[in-house]
Amino acid sequence: MSGGASLRMRRLGIDTYQHPVVYMRSDCHVCKSEGFEAQSRIELRHGATSVIATLNVVHFDLLGEDEIGLSEAAFRALGGTDGDRVLLMHPAPLMSFSSVRAKIYGRPLSGDAAGAIITDVCAGRYSDIELAAFITACSGGRLDAAETVALTRAMIGAGKRLHWDAPMVVDKHCVGGLPGNRTTLLVVPIVAACGLTIPKTSSRAITSPAGSADAMETLAPVTLDLPHIRRVVEQENGCIVWGGAVALSPADDLLIRVERPLGLDSDGMLVASVLSKKIAAGSTHVVIDIPVGRTAKVRSSEAAKALEGRLVSVGAAMGIAVTVVMSDGAQPVGRGIGPALEAYDVLAVLQNERGAADDLRQRALMLAAAVLEMGGKAAPGAGLAMARETLGSGAAWRKFQAICAAQGGMREPPRAAHTHVLESLHKGRVVAIDNRQLAQVAKLAGAPKAAAAGVVFHAPLGMAVEVGQPLLTLHAESAGELAYALAFAESQEHLVTVQA
Amino acid sequence: MSGGASLRMRRLGIDTYQHPVVYMRSDCHVCKSEGFEAQSRIELRHGATSVIATLNVVHFDLLGEDEIGLSEAAFRALGGTDGDRVLLMHPAPLMSFSSVRAKIYGRPLSGDAAGAIITDVCAGRYSDIELAAFITACSGGRLDAAETVALTRAMIGAGKRLHWDAPMVVDKHCVGGLPGNRTTLLVVPIVAACGLTIPKTSSRAITSPAGSADAMETLAPVTLDLPHIRRVVEQENGCIVWGGAVALSPADDLLIRVERPLGLDSDGMLVASVLSKKIAAGSTHVVIDIPVGRTAKVRSSEAAKALEGRLVSVGAAMGIAVTVVMSDGAQPVGRGIGPALEAYDVLAVLQNERGAADDLRQRALMLAAAVLEMGGKAAPGAGLAMARETLGSGAAWRKFQAICAAQGGMREPPRAAHTHVLESLHKGRVVAIDNRQLAQVAKLAGAPKAAAAGVVFHAPLGMAVEVGQPLLTLHAESAGELAYALAFAESQEHLVTVQA
Repeated sequence: MSGGASLRMRRLGIDTYQHPVVYMRSDCHVCKSEGFEAQSRIELRHGATSVIATLNVVHFDLLGEDEIGLSEAAFRALGGTDGDRVLLMHPAPLMSFSSVRAKIYGRPLSGDAAGAIITDVCAGRYSDIELAAFITACSGGRLDAAETVALTRAMIGAGKRLHWDAPMVVDKHCVGGLPGNRTTLLVVPIVAACGLTIPKTSSRAITSPAGSADAMETLAPVTLDLPHIRRVVEQENGCIVWGGAVALSPADDLLIRVERPLGLDSDGMLVASVLSKKIAAGSTHVVIDIPVGRTAKVRSSEAAKALEGRLVSVGAAMGIAVTVVMSDGAQPVGRGIGPALEAYDVLAVLQNERGAADDLRQRALMLAAAVLEMGGKAAPGAGLAMARETLGSGAAWRKFQAICAAQGGMREPPRAAHTHVLESLHKGRVVAIDNRQLAQVAKLAGAPKAAAAGVVFHAPLGMAVEVGQPLLTLHAESAGELAYALAFAESQEHLVTVQA
Repeated sequence: MSGGASLRMRRLGIDTYQHPVVYMRSDCHVCKSEGFEAQSRIELRHGATSVIATLNVVHFDLLGEDEIGLSEAAFRALGGTDGDRVLLMHPAPLMSFSSVRAKIYGRPLSGDAAGAIITDVCAGRYSDIELAAFITACSGGRLDAAETVALTRAMIGAGKRLHWDAPMVVDKHCVGGLPGNRTTLLVVPIVAACGLTIPKTSSRAITSPAGSADAMETLAPVTLDLPHIRRVVEQENGCIVWGGAVALSPADDLLIRVERPLGLDSDGMLVASVLSKKIAAGSTHVVIDIPVGRTAKVRSSEAAKALEGRLVSVGAAMGIAVTVVMSDGAQPVGRGIGPALEAYDVLAVLQNERGAADDLRQRALMLAAAVLEMGGKAAPGAGLAMARETLGSGAAWRKFQAICAAQGGMREPPRAAHTHVLESLHKGRVVAIDNRQLAQVAKLAGAPKAAAAGVVFHAPLGMAVEVGQPLLTLHAESAGELAYALAFAESQEHLVTVQA
């Protein structure tokens, strides 16, 4: 590739989120000699690090003649300080994208192709539209079992892989789709208090208003480096950290950044995402919760069975034992939907508060029981009693506080500055709840980026309500987001259906 | 949706190509009250116009407290002048994207869904990754005939539709994939000189180094408004203009902007793209050239037959007569590959120069003959003689000059500042040429954006060559692009295969 051209870097303080952008003057000698134009992809090198960024051409005198401006994302990726020389070149053609094109045209994704694609994704060589094409090509049931294994293997290979000084490392995971389902924050302390090793790395939300990492982050730091995670687990048997921060299956978080706005999350990608994280984290035994419901992510027991089959078979091919638990996905779990609101639900259960959400508690106990039995701590059928005892005695709450302290210190989740109560217009019973629309309201209110934002849900299925009785409370950090979420909620007739 | 917040616009002179971007201060009151963050999509309104732009957050004092910065694309879309107040709001949720998601999950694309999607695309409501997902979902043979009709109809409905004072309006189109195949610039003057009405609207390149509009633009203006096009056609019977400038099937060019970097161009999208343009341009009879070859866009006669069937059946459903001509796609046509280089090939044929590319000439005559016969100007079998006479007599060349003059004035195509000759390393015969790699070399050299850039091809299939004999000359407008194209060309063993 051509090389040699260089300019002095200047951090411009422009936040383009995770998308690296560079700014060059239209009369810049490098622009001319290299033929760079607006939207050109340019490879920048500074010492041993490199990044591929998108060019914006600047027609005014923001920059000096020998300068290149860096967005915050480009600056983070490249390092250095203002005035350092940066080498500029055309990036090598993206050879692995021909495998994406082949997949779009119906040819199977081979192990080599998956490896090359994921390597390029992790190196930042895929533009957003190329990522979107890859994700779309793998969505809608278009990855078979062999392709899923190939993708899982490629995703593990792209990052670090942990090894623990324990013969058995357990884990749990929920495939999501059910607002408020924050059982991870309960299962980990219960299981860890019982002596099993459970180093939990969680994702941020994909299409939901909050992931476990988002909710946990309102209670303690989750962005830990590997030595820190190791210390937490050695000391407390468990942790709840963000997987993206520790380069375990790093492709996953890069894919999620594009999957989230597209609202796509298919079986094959889902299995590869889940199992690559678990295997990279060193797990040997994992319990996977699949909530099933008309408006959950998995809508039918047939779809759940298919997903279970794929999880178990790909797990077996990869040498990890998988147990699937199917749960009721008819309505939200707990009361809060959104990072901080879900954290408050968890705290109430851990502290055995009288008014704590019983559905959240029962789900957590059931999953903890499955993990305890799978991990050999409880005999078959005896897991539930052990989990209930560990929670009821306060041992789980003490373990949770110890984990938070070890992760950097426990803190109080934020409270929203703006709230609005939505009341029932009818007298009757709650007969249906649309989880997807409810999640959409929470997202429009700002979740998960705004940690305090979301929805508190007051009316479970079957509850009798009067006219004027609160159904939902919207929480937002800004008045604009509150108004936006409210306008949407009021325009949806089937958000919560009350029938006389 | 929430509204009311406003800021004063400031044109920042940042060129983000066609992607509207706005810049707001991180401490801006609207950012806070509306909950806008980096990468938020924001709807801007100024008078009767509106645009949806992506937010970049600025952490330095480029902007005043009450200001919002606009990229060039945002400024072009919105109009106004520095200091005008712009209304800011959250865009309405993109309801039509649920139909894209449904298509990804295997459900068919209905007429209503296609209409809603194309309306939103034309209104600028789709982000680049949403466009990429839609294009990918429709690629790889995933649109059936009914869906193609739905998409074609939606694309026509989104723009203007021309009507001509002629009982028959003819057209020709090549599905591309063959570098240098610039027959449009020959067929239009031949057919127009014979008295048929041929208002040709061409696309810019999708995945090739040059489209007809790109090549024509090096000879005359192609960005004409409708009254101007009408004057040209009334006066000269024909024109060769860029379709994207006149809002005929405007979605097409928006889709092409994302299709091009992805290198995707599927049967269904291709048929909808071609026929929507032809029907919107008011054509009643169209001849479509499908070059077939191992490395052309259409690789086999089976694939060509399938595409022909789709073109004819969708044409019939839409009330337009389609005739398909299959041609040899084994190697490039003419000598030049790239906008200006192809224009020079065309000029040589029009001027009946002794050394003009005979393959380009023969192809153009064959297609012109098909149009003349379809349009009733020549009896079946007599078209070729009429076309040959019109070209040989200089009537076509005079007509071409008249069309250029009517479009705004003929000009000389640019010449590249940097060239490099690639010589044969072996003695023998040319036995194979990789059209795709050749096109890639021309694109790496800068085509089609750099109009003078591309490749001149000296060694057709079957030619005997000596060691050191020129095979290709690379043309580039910058030294960097020349070096880049050269490095790629030299790394490809099968670009031109010479066998002893």
